[in-house]
Amino acid sequence: MNYRELSRKELVREYTKQWNRYLKYEEQDLSLDLSRGKPGKEQLALSMKMMDTLTSRSVLDSENGMDCRNYGGLDGIPEAKSLLGEMLGVHPENVLVCGNSSLTVMFDILSHAMLDGLLGSKPWSRVENRKFLCPVPGYDRHFAMTEHFGFTLIPVAMKEDGPDMDQVRRLVEADPTVKGIWCVPKYQNPTGVVFSKQVIQEFADLRPAAGDFRIFWDNAYCVHGLYPDDDAPLPDLLHACTLAGHPDMVYEFCSTSKMAFPGAGISAVAASPANLIDLRKVWAFATIGPDKLNQLRQVRYFKSMAGVKAHMARHASLMRPKFEKVIRVLEEELAGSGVAQWTTPRGGYFLSFDTMPGCAARVVELCARAGVKFTPAGSTWPYGHDPQDTNIRIAPSYAPISEVETATRLLAVCTKLAALEKLAAQYCVTVPSLAGAQTA
Amino acid sequence: MNYRELSRKELVREYTKQWNRYLKYEEQDLSLDLSRGKPGKEQLALSMKMMDTLTSRSVLDSENGMDCRNYGGLDGIPEAKSLLGEMLGVHPENVLVCGNSSLTVMFDILSHAMLDGLLGSKPWSRVENRKFLCPVPGYDRHFAMTEHFGFTLIPVAMKEDGPDMDQVRRLVEADPTVKGIWCVPKYQNPTGVVFSKQVIQEFADLRPAAGDFRIFWDNAYCVHGLYPDDDAPLPDLLHACTLAGHPDMVYEFCSTSKMAFPGAGISAVAASPANLIDLRKVWAFATIGPDKLNQLRQVRYFKSMAGVKAHMARHASLMRPKFEKVIRVLEEELAGSGVAQWTTPRGGYFLSFDTMPGCAARVVELCARAGVKFTPAGSTWPYGHDPQDTNIRIAPSYAPISEVETATRLLAVCTKLAALEKLAAQYCVTVPSLAGAQTA
Repeated sequence: MNYRELSRKELVREYTKQWNRYLKYEEQDLSLDLSRGKPGKEQLALSMKMMDTLTSRSVLDSENGMDCRNYGGLDGIPEAKSLLGEMLGVHPENVLVCGNSSLTVMFDILSHAMLDGLLGSKPWSRVENRKFLCPVPGYDRHFAMTEHFGFTLIPVAMKEDGPDMDQVRRLVEADPTVKGIWCVPKYQNPTGVVFSKQVIQEFADLRPAAGDFRIFWDNAYCVHGLYPDDDAPLPDLLHACTLAGHPDMVYEFCSTSKMAFPGAGISAVAASPANLIDLRKVWAFATIGPDKLNQLRQVRYFKSMAGVKAHMARHASLMRPKFEKVIRVLEEELAGSGVAQWTTPRGGYFLSFDTMPGCAARVVELCARAGVKFTPAGSTWPYGHDPQDTNIRIAPSYAPISEVETATRLLAVCTKLAALEKLAAQYCVTVPSLAGAQTA
Repeated sequence: MNYRELSRKELVREYTKQWNRYLKYEEQDLSLDLSRGKPGKEQLALSMKMMDTLTSRSVLDSENGMDCRNYGGLDGIPEAKSLLGEMLGVHPENVLVCGNSSLTVMFDILSHAMLDGLLGSKPWSRVENRKFLCPVPGYDRHFAMTEHFGFTLIPVAMKEDGPDMDQVRRLVEADPTVKGIWCVPKYQNPTGVVFSKQVIQEFADLRPAAGDFRIFWDNAYCVHGLYPDDDAPLPDLLHACTLAGHPDMVYEFCSTSKMAFPGAGISAVAASPANLIDLRKVWAFATIGPDKLNQLRQVRYFKSMAGVKAHMARHASLMRPKFEKVIRVLEEELAGSGVAQWTTPRGGYFLSFDTMPGCAARVVELCARAGVKFTPAGSTWPYGHDPQDTNIRIAPSYAPISEVETATRLLAVCTKLAALEKLAAQYCVTVPSLAGAQTA
């Protein structure tokens, strides 16, 4: 049923039908949460043996003989540089392994750029009207961070194979106050898009107006495919930038947070030799070194890239049914309705869902009233403002699959209600139950 | 033998005697290091059972029911707030428990002050001629950090019960560009001085010209007494500042690094409610939260403040003989010489040693030539420049006690040689072996 083609009468009938469905959800006193990208309990259970990796009988030396129980080693231990380098697709010597949060590493690099400048450039805090590009929909914490640092955030459209590179190129090559861009290149948050080889090459070929322009390449989902036997390849951008003569243009990030225990993993940044020298120089003031015991724990648990893949396949087997459930429910409920579209990710933690323009906030509100929490509408846009009010991020990882199904079906019902409200307004139809819903 | 009273002839004879001793050390091909404050191997062995604290069979919830295996909890877990709060002598609600390095927490707060200002004050990066007070001798990493952030470092003399508070008061109350002071209040690095109750009260009673003046109270050695039955009391400064009407004037820091495994512990900052709100606000951009599993591991291992004390008594039993050995050797070699003095700490990781003026760099050089490494002369002063060239930091923790003895004895011999060289120059005496030593 295409909602946009309904007669007035059909519209009222459909609205009443969906409204009655909604009321039934309300009666259930639901308390479900599909708002944040946290692994579920079963996923956490997959990694419990990590807690047994280091014991009082372990030799706690890294492979280069460093005693991981004592101070030292700003770079992180060699075996962690190798493993996280392999996850990113870069050489170990291009990697620093850091603390428990890649987000913190991004923040620290931005702080450094703000206060000191990068490789001798003018500190970004002294650049008037500094700007940062934000592919949309995207990750709210990325956007909030650069907003905090006083950047004007410029939305750039996400396409099916990555950001709109014509738009990126135009902005980056014309304006020296454009200092960076956020990217989640593989299974992007929230679309699930994997950047294509061509997009990556176009990134490498950028000729930024700003000499200190940087791509913040947050490869958070590099090993988080839902279909391990058919994982998307992602050419390495650092390598491509180096070949294109711009080795310093990118910082790449990853972490083991969503591989084992979020917040208790290890993170890494990969960059050119010059960028790493620059980072080591400032971080030597901030720390004597990262938690090497946790680095040792992580590496000895995962063992190798093959070990990582085997482990992530177990995650995939828990995540895949949830994603497939979401997609099945959305298809059952909304295919052909003309009032919604969604992505079908092959990895990552999110799906991106678009309502009819002007409906997303209303949908999230209706869901919340029935006890189901989604990420606030607008979150996927800079400043939390989605100009079309269409985008909703679906995070199916944390809830059990039965709850994912219920929540998604409710989302579909609310999407229909909100769309019908809009369409009714166009017809100047008053829907009795609607009035009640808005004042309840 | 008071070197300052030697005749020319006695001086030459004494120099020759010490020079022959020095040559015997040189022949031994020593390779000893008393330069950094790292725990020794036996100390690390004390904590190996910590590696067994969390296993795959552990319930990994904090006492408030938070699953420590997943994201969340910017403040740290409640039991860690309690334990580290107790170490600092503050209420848990005044504490944030952070990552593996208290140094990083200090750096992060300074970054925040530089970029954002504190509680609405002008960002420090925009304060011309900003200054930071540095009690001397002091900790090189503190000084280097504020130098990095563009502060002019003002040395303040350390007295036997803390910094010279007349000097501190004069500087802090007259000059709004004086933004902070570094303090290690208990078993100070390197003197071992414990700040007196009166000094702490004088800190609390400061009336800074700068509204955003901050005391960086690095209580790194709060539980690191050498004589557990007779540990120095330290009144809490946050409490004193609050009573004096200046609750926001101090940040206190501690960590478990030197209690178990350096670099793999947890850190904390304690501050007023307003300061904590300010920090949470900015850190919410930088992280989803600290490594809660490591917080759980630390707290479950130490169990309680009584557990901490019992554990630290075991550290003390390893450290005390080393400190006592250093002091005994220095007394045997240098008491009454008139060319050296040293502190006799009752806790911490260091002793402070002073040569005759103008001799410290020469002493460290002579030691290094004979294979014994001390912290570079000058390190305990801002910019690495000790204007009198007298101070050397002795760090006896890492080396085995036999090496501590050898290294200290060599230090004494070199101190005598350097002093005799100076005194010889005053007599216009040429010491043949001296020429050789300087050109070797």
